[in-house]
Amino acid sequence: MLVKVYITLKPSVLDPQGKTVQKSLENLGFKDVKDVRVGKYIEVQLSDTLKKEEAQKQIQKMCERLLANTVIENYSFHI
Amino acid sequence: MLVKVYITLKPSVLDPQGKTVQKSLENLGFKDVKDVRVGKYIEVQLSDTLKKEEAQKQIQKMCERLLANTVIENYSFHI
Repeated sequence: MLVKVYITLKPSVLDPQGKTVQKSLENLGFKDVKDVRVGKYIEVQLSDTLKKEEAQKQIQKMCERLLANTVIENYSFHI
Repeated sequence: MLVKVYITLKPSVLDPQGKTVQKSLENLGFKDVKDVRVGKYIEVQLSDTLKKEEAQKQIQKMCERLLANTVIENYSFHI
């Protein structure tokens, strides 16, 4: 079972990496770029015998304990 | 207009970061994890006056020229 996890910085947290990408895009001539935020995309392959509800619980725990830093990051996932 | 860009390593490319996350999850007691791949998730805010077709073209160019390393990475996006 493939779970897609999206980790993003909270809106109030500065994103220097995103700002750098934004500047680079502007320098390359892309004038319509208003903002860029960089996050992580994680694909977790879980055992196929796992039920969807159980998978959901486990992924949530994984995000809280390891994948995301919940002080500065938000997470969402899609099973 | 918000565009969500997903950058992933090509399947044939080794992902040591993903393997490390996988090991850490196993060490935390998550026994159902079969594989982990880590990619990037980029939110690009484009000017609202841009038409969807034009935005699509621009994002594709951004991915080819800066956001993704197309030798080892695949990209996809959602407008």
